[in-house]
Amino acid sequence: MTPPDPTRLSLNTATVRKQWTLAQIIEGCARHGIRTITPWRDQVENDGLKATAVRLRETGLALSGYCRGGMFPAPDAAGRAAARDDNRRAVDEALVLGAPCLVLVVGGLPKHADGRPASKDLAGARAMVRDGIAELLDYARPAGMPLAIEPLHPMYAADRACVNTMAQANALCDELGDGVGIVVDVYHVWWDPELRQEIARAGRARSADGKSRLRAFHLCDWLVPTRDLLLDRGMMGDGVIDLPLIRSWMEAAGYDGAHEVEIFSANDWWKRDPDEVLATCKLRHRECS
Amino acid sequence: MTPPDPTRLSLNTATVRKQWTLAQIIEGCARHGIRTITPWRDQVENDGLKATAVRLRETGLALSGYCRGGMFPAPDAAGRAAARDDNRRAVDEALVLGAPCLVLVVGGLPKHADGRPASKDLAGARAMVRDGIAELLDYARPAGMPLAIEPLHPMYAADRACVNTMAQANALCDELGDGVGIVVDVYHVWWDPELRQEIARAGRARSADGKSRLRAFHLCDWLVPTRDLLLDRGMMGDGVIDLPLIRSWMEAAGYDGAHEVEIFSANDWWKRDPDEVLATCKLRHRECS
Repeated sequence: MTPPDPTRLSLNTATVRKQWTLAQIIEGCARHGIRTITPWRDQVENDGLKATAVRLRETGLALSGYCRGGMFPAPDAAGRAAARDDNRRAVDEALVLGAPCLVLVVGGLPKHADGRPASKDLAGARAMVRDGIAELLDYARPAGMPLAIEPLHPMYAADRACVNTMAQANALCDELGDGVGIVVDVYHVWWDPELRQEIARAGRARSADGKSRLRAFHLCDWLVPTRDLLLDRGMMGDGVIDLPLIRSWMEAAGYDGAHEVEIFSANDWWKRDPDEVLATCKLRHRECS
Repeated sequence: MTPPDPTRLSLNTATVRKQWTLAQIIEGCARHGIRTITPWRDQVENDGLKATAVRLRETGLALSGYCRGGMFPAPDAAGRAAARDDNRRAVDEALVLGAPCLVLVVGGLPKHADGRPASKDLAGARAMVRDGIAELLDYARPAGMPLAIEPLHPMYAADRACVNTMAQANALCDELGDGVGIVVDVYHVWWDPELRQEIARAGRARSADGKSRLRAFHLCDWLVPTRDLLLDRGMMGDGVIDLPLIRSWMEAAGYDGAHEVEIFSANDWWKRDPDEVLATCKLRHRECS
């Protein structure tokens, strides 16, 4: 396996979110020679949308995505309308920031306002997701902002995303047509026996912009043991995912975009010196991905 | 949906393993009118195999399965031979106890002796699983002990089982032929968009004994939030799984066997009075499953 092109390294800003503001992350990435990032909406809101756009321009950083839209299912029409409006704002922000796509974490079962599940109807939630993306496409497509569905690990099916496999994401894209693609995050899909063939399928599907469905590629690692369902992701090389193998499948499918490191790690990487985190991302991208 | 037949209720003995010995569990189930159980090997070893067989006979309890064989992948031939020998002993024990099947938790990536992963080759681990089951079938088939593959949730792919979907289990059964079926545990498969069709597929496949591939049906619930990857399963009704819907799919596929409650719950059900646990299993089976 040839090593990855180091210039493809991108930082999902969640990776150092506990240590730095977005302004500090942008400055840090510029300093470490990381040329692309994917920021989160709350971080952008904290620093200001226009200020962030200016800062990106001044440092010469580009975006590999924008995190995130989605969360479509809701127990009632008002909740779904609120999600629709919020997602349109996310599209607007992604346009201001020049993001190549808006990442969609589609949501799980409908929830009450306090977060408790409001339904056990998983098929119904999936239908709400399909309808929600279809409606958002009517807004995002003419605006020129591609959407990118991120299938999440099945352990998040109830509370974060009820799209849980590449096959499911590919079927949704087949149904929804142009303007929507897929984010492949190794953490979510590494276990899937159909991963290779579904990456190839996504690579074959072309949008009107000439690009394939493969809109982003997220890196981290699966630790053994994993001590928390959400906040115990590993740095590349510290876990069991065969990252070069999955990268080879992405490349064979024609993907030539960013390799975006996204690590939620309450007890390890979020507690370290962020300059050490960025240096380690660079090293492990080169040596273990 | 019609309520479930209460006589189908079975107890996987892990559900009260922290409170009671197997002898106490057998006595407790008899007292609560639960007529079938699935014991674990370590519990049987603690109480003695012959003593357990006698106790089952005396109380009139039957087994709905025997937990468990499997754990086929190993870093070397000696490790795989040790797994083979241990699995043959599990078959022997299942025969002594009159179990209708030996449940297989097939194992994840090969491990070192200290438990650390020895490989990232998931496809290789899956091949070891296939080969291991094939070899065990040469022993179990003539002995008349059906094997039953339990697909485990993808969050266990690295460390417990690299068979993670019903589709994968069905494909393995297709390949391995007679004498091996599937355990459907709602906790592991509830999220799967292909669940209904794969249950139907398993129901259509017949073995030489005239039965379908559907050899066991395990109940519990998925809690939101889930606080531990292994030991935070919920009682039926306390989580988000649509249990009557999945039961209806099992019944439509011709399944007429036990409904086995299996709950690992370090901070809740393992801390309660076991008589309360058994009474709750009966109630929730009737009302929520």
